[in-house]
Amino acid sequence: MYQMNLFAPENIPEINIGDNIGRIIIDCLKEKQFSLSNGDIIVIAHKIISKAEGRLIHLSEVLPSDEARNLSELTGKDPHLIQVILQESKEIVKVRKGLIIARHRLGFVCANAAIDQSNAGIDSVVLLPEDPDRSAKEICNLIKSELGKDVAVIVNDSHGRPFREGAIGIAVGIAGMKPLLSYVGKKDRYGYVMRSSVEAVVDEIASAATLLMGQSDESRPVVVIRGYSYEFGNDGIKDLLRPVEKDLFSG
Amino acid sequence: MYQMNLFAPENIPEINIGDNIGRIIIDCLKEKQFSLSNGDIIVIAHKIISKAEGRLIHLSEVLPSDEARNLSELTGKDPHLIQVILQESKEIVKVRKGLIIARHRLGFVCANAAIDQSNAGIDSVVLLPEDPDRSAKEICNLIKSELGKDVAVIVNDSHGRPFREGAIGIAVGIAGMKPLLSYVGKKDRYGYVMRSSVEAVVDEIASAATLLMGQSDESRPVVVIRGYSYEFGNDGIKDLLRPVEKDLFSG
Repeated sequence: MYQMNLFAPENIPEINIGDNIGRIIIDCLKEKQFSLSNGDIIVIAHKIISKAEGRLIHLSEVLPSDEARNLSELTGKDPHLIQVILQESKEIVKVRKGLIIARHRLGFVCANAAIDQSNAGIDSVVLLPEDPDRSAKEICNLIKSELGKDVAVIVNDSHGRPFREGAIGIAVGIAGMKPLLSYVGKKDRYGYVMRSSVEAVVDEIASAATLLMGQSDESRPVVVIRGYSYEFGNDGIKDLLRPVEKDLFSG
Repeated sequence: MYQMNLFAPENIPEINIGDNIGRIIIDCLKEKQFSLSNGDIIVIAHKIISKAEGRLIHLSEVLPSDEARNLSELTGKDPHLIQVILQESKEIVKVRKGLIIARHRLGFVCANAAIDQSNAGIDSVVLLPEDPDRSAKEICNLIKSELGKDVAVIVNDSHGRPFREGAIGIAVGIAGMKPLLSYVGKKDRYGYVMRSSVEAVVDEIASAATLLMGQSDESRPVVVIRGYSYEFGNDGIKDLLRPVEKDLFSG
């Protein structure tokens, strides 16, 4: 039997600003007597990285602009929250009652510019890390230098989808692996040469890990995946983002 | 450590019309001395179910309508393929060079009405199963009656996304579990009551399984997942489909 296994340590502590997430992961896995191997993938909930990086904002300290107040009237959303959404976005894609879809400064198109109100402390919101690829890379490098292991690191978040209910885990930062696996040019069982099959493997890995993470008070923000063979890569998330001119529902 | 494990038997044979997929899965797992447990989830690539159900079409036998010929001029796609897309769709959502986004008769919005050219044999295309929920339910029932085990069954496919490159595994049919897990009303670590967190767990499971399935000639179309706790449900896929009037990018 071909196998893939996911492990989530339950001993990751509450994260505070200034914490070194890579160090905490190494220590928690050691405490659980779990040894990382070459080829393992570590998926980390973006929230704990954002908290360590101080990417929390107290809504009461935000001053809403006129644009934020206008959007608040249209959507019924808190103008302070909207001001933060605007600051984190390159473009507002769609607005209606109860909904703001934005293109995040990192390129993701998602609700509320990926700003998250749960697990942030009352009246606070969590932004994405400043540069999730860089955060992933730092953790990757620390594991290499401390443990001598080559692993991939994925920072994940949950995003909604335009046409399906419910959010799913996706990757917002990557280090040590290619985000896409192309079958183009390979033959299927019948000798048909595939022309368009490209699989977003990092998003599938991010989703698999989300199943173990949970979202309530007993959440497990770190998941180790063993048994999935991936291609090494060092370019981060960028190949995963569809350029504006190519997105499937505009133009 | 909290754990989830995925197993893919490598001995699933080539599937032919009239094959009983549930029976084949039971036999192949037995041959591998793998015993199913209550609570296991079996993910099955839609392609093998479609093949068993005879849902293959030879493009050379299709007669394109005028609408198909017009769309062929706009998109550059084979008018025979387009005719099949039209037959499988409720609505064409978006058309441009090289691209047809359709609302499939089962409600999914996706490229080419989920019609797949790879792994179907030269000049053939594979449609989705007639009723993927029913197909899943039949396999679920067979496993209960033959082995006495309560498992969930998910039929998966790969769909592209509007704003991200690459396709990911999603569920097109379900039996024995609820597709969505709601955190609404639950408290996070800070006592913040979550208002909008709903996770499409079956899609995340479908994605996790896709990682093991592969798409080339050595594909593994069946994956067993153990260690994920889910809620029992018997309503199939429907809660996962966003009604047209609620989809995030129209209206």
